[in-house]
Amino acid sequence: MKRREFIKNAGIAAVGGAAASTTLAAPAIAQERIEMVMVSTWPRDFPGLGTGAQRLAQRIQDVSDGRFQVQYFAAGERVGAFDVFDEVASGNAQCYHAADYYWKGKHPGWAYFTSVPFGLTENEMGSWIHFMGGQELWDELAGEFGLKCLASGNTGVQMGGWFNKEINSAEDFKGLKIRMPGLGGDVMAKLGASPVSLPGGQIYENLVSGAIDATEWVGPWNDYFLKFYEAAKYYYYPGMHEPGGFDSLGMNKTWWEGLNKSDQLLIQACAYEECQVMMSEYNANNGRYLAKLVNEHGVELKEFNDDVYDAFGDASAEVYEEARAHSELANRIHESFAAARADVGSWMKLSEGAYYSQRNRVLGL
Amino acid sequence: MKRREFIKNAGIAAVGGAAASTTLAAPAIAQERIEMVMVSTWPRDFPGLGTGAQRLAQRIQDVSDGRFQVQYFAAGERVGAFDVFDEVASGNAQCYHAADYYWKGKHPGWAYFTSVPFGLTENEMGSWIHFMGGQELWDELAGEFGLKCLASGNTGVQMGGWFNKEINSAEDFKGLKIRMPGLGGDVMAKLGASPVSLPGGQIYENLVSGAIDATEWVGPWNDYFLKFYEAAKYYYYPGMHEPGGFDSLGMNKTWWEGLNKSDQLLIQACAYEECQVMMSEYNANNGRYLAKLVNEHGVELKEFNDDVYDAFGDASAEVYEEARAHSELANRIHESFAAARADVGSWMKLSEGAYYSQRNRVLGL
Repeated sequence: MKRREFIKNAGIAAVGGAAASTTLAAPAIAQERIEMVMVSTWPRDFPGLGTGAQRLAQRIQDVSDGRFQVQYFAAGERVGAFDVFDEVASGNAQCYHAADYYWKGKHPGWAYFTSVPFGLTENEMGSWIHFMGGQELWDELAGEFGLKCLASGNTGVQMGGWFNKEINSAEDFKGLKIRMPGLGGDVMAKLGASPVSLPGGQIYENLVSGAIDATEWVGPWNDYFLKFYEAAKYYYYPGMHEPGGFDSLGMNKTWWEGLNKSDQLLIQACAYEECQVMMSEYNANNGRYLAKLVNEHGVELKEFNDDVYDAFGDASAEVYEEARAHSELANRIHESFAAARADVGSWMKLSEGAYYSQRNRVLGL
Repeated sequence: MKRREFIKNAGIAAVGGAAASTTLAAPAIAQERIEMVMVSTWPRDFPGLGTGAQRLAQRIQDVSDGRFQVQYFAAGERVGAFDVFDEVASGNAQCYHAADYYWKGKHPGWAYFTSVPFGLTENEMGSWIHFMGGQELWDELAGEFGLKCLASGNTGVQMGGWFNKEINSAEDFKGLKIRMPGLGGDVMAKLGASPVSLPGGQIYENLVSGAIDATEWVGPWNDYFLKFYEAAKYYYYPGMHEPGGFDSLGMNKTWWEGLNKSDQLLIQACAYEECQVMMSEYNANNGRYLAKLVNEHGVELKEFNDDVYDAFGDASAEVYEEARAHSELANRIHESFAAARADVGSWMKLSEGAYYSQRNRVLGL
C-alpha cells in the first residue's frame, strides 16, 4: 500500500484553522502547557495506521497529564496528507505522523526509514534504527529538512497481492497491469509489468472491470474490508515490497531541540510504545482476518515460488542502484541498511525464521 | 536460560536497607514525589536483561522529570533474585523486573506470560497480550497474588544449545546430560535426557570436564562471553524452549491502583518502550556475535531436523497437559494462548516466516 490515496481534502478545515491561534497560552500556564499540533497522512479512524496515530496523540497528552496539549488532524482536516511535511518543516505544526517513504521524491534516502523492497522486517528495523546506526542517519537526513523523526508504528510484512491468474514464473508479470505504487512498483516495472497507482476506494471497481489484473493493498485485516476476494481468486505471499517499515513521528527540529530532555524522553517513550502496540494489533488482526478470508470466503492462498523471488531480488538490486546514485548520503544510508540486513538477517534465519518453520510444520498451521 | 542462577546474594544489602525508610518524603514534596523501589532478578549490568531493567528504571524517573524517584536494586543488592516476588507482593518494594515463569511453582499459569516450549515469538506475544485476551488473564492471575504486571523486554528466540555430538534423531537425547532448566528441561526429560540446572558461571567447567554433555544459555550475544565454543563443537538451532517471552514489570497491585491514570500510562509507556528497545538490542547483538562465533571461532551451526522437532512437539504437548490440570485458570490461560498461537502463528507463517525464508535464500544469508 502507498497511502497517497488517503488525501481526502487538501484544504484547511475550519476546525484546524482555529487551533493555530492558541499557540500562546495564558501566562499563568505558559510554562506548563506545550501546544503540539499533529497532522497526519491517514484518514480519520483508518484501522491500524489512523487509529494508531490517534492513540499516540492521545497518549502523549495523557502521559504528560495534559501538559502537552495535543491536537490531532487526520489527512485533509488541516492540510492535505502530503502537505504535512512542509507544514511541520516550516513550523506551522509541531509534528506529523506519516510513512517517511512518501518523501523519497525529495531524497531517496527517506524510503529506507519506512521500507524498501527486499528490506527489513519490524524486528530488524528496530535493530538497525536503535542499535546499528540507523537513527543517526535518519537524524542526518531529517536534519537537512529541519525535522527530527522517531519510529512510531509498523504494519509488518505485507501480502504479495491479489491475482486472477497463477504466477508461476517472472514471465507471468509481463504486461500485467498491477496496482502497486512506490519502489515496489518500480520492481514490478523492471519485470515487465505495468504498475499503476490507484486510491484504495477505486481498486475494487478496477479489478472487477478488468481495468487492472492484480493489486496489493496491505494485509488480511485492511484488505478484508475492501472485498478483493469477490474480484480476485488468488492471494499471494509473501510480499517483497514492504516487509516491515516504521511509521514516523516527524517533528519540527527547532521545536524538538527547544524541549527539555525529560519531555523529549516522554515523547520518545510514547512513540516507541506505539511501535510495540501497533505491530501487535496488526498481527493479531491479520491472523483473525486471514482465517475469515480463507474459511468464510474461500480465498486461495498461494506462495511465490523461488523463480519469482529470484527475479524480485534481481529487480530490487537494480532499484537500489538508482537510489545510491543520488548522493553520498543516500549511498551511506544504503550501505548501513545492507550491513544491518546481512548481520541481523543471518540471525533471524536461525531464530525466528527457523522457529516459525519448524513449529508451524509440527502444529500443522 | 533460566535466570535462577543469578542469585548472588540472598541477604539484604546495607545500601538497600536505607531505601525503605524514605518512603514518606517531606510534606513539601509529598504530593509531587513518588517513591518507586525496583528490585530485579538480574545481576547488575548483565548485558541485555540487566542493562534493560536498569534503563527502564532510569527512564521512568527521567520521563516523569524526577517525580518518580526510582531506586533500582539488582539481584542480591536488596533481596535475593527469587525473593523479589514476595518483596513486591508484600508492599516492601513497589515493583520488580523479572521473568514471570520463575513463579510457576506458585501457579503454572505464570510460565505462559514469559515463555513455554513451542510457544509464541516476541511479535506473537505482543498480539496475545495486548489484543487477544492475554493481559486480562495476566491481570487475573497476578491479582490473586496482589500484583499487576506489564510486558517490559524480551530476549527473542533462544538458540537450541551447544552439543559435542550430532543430534540426528530424538534417540540421541537418551541419557544426555544437558543443562536446561524449567519447562524446556521437562521436555528434555520426556525424551530421555537428564536435564540439570547450573548457574551460568559453572556451565563452562562442567562442559569441559564432561560432567555435562550439552548446554543451552541464551543466544550468540550472551553465550559468546561464556566461551562455550571452546568446549562444544556444535551450536544447534532453533531453540524450542523459550521462543520469545516477555520480561515483566511486576508492581504491587494496591500501589498501582493508587496511582492516577496519567502515572499508570507513564509507567506503561516506559515498559512498552523497553519491549521495543530490548528486543532490538538482542537481535542486533545476536547478529553481530553470531558472525564472530562462526568467523572467528569456527563454530559449526546445525539445525534440528524434522524428526527431532516432531519429538519436541509431542513432549511439549505432554508438558502442557500437566499445566492445564492444575486449575481452571491455568486451563483457561492455556486455551487462550493456544488459540492465539493458531491464529497469529498461521499469519506469521505467511508473513515473517515466508519472507525470511525467501529473502535470505536469494541473498545467500
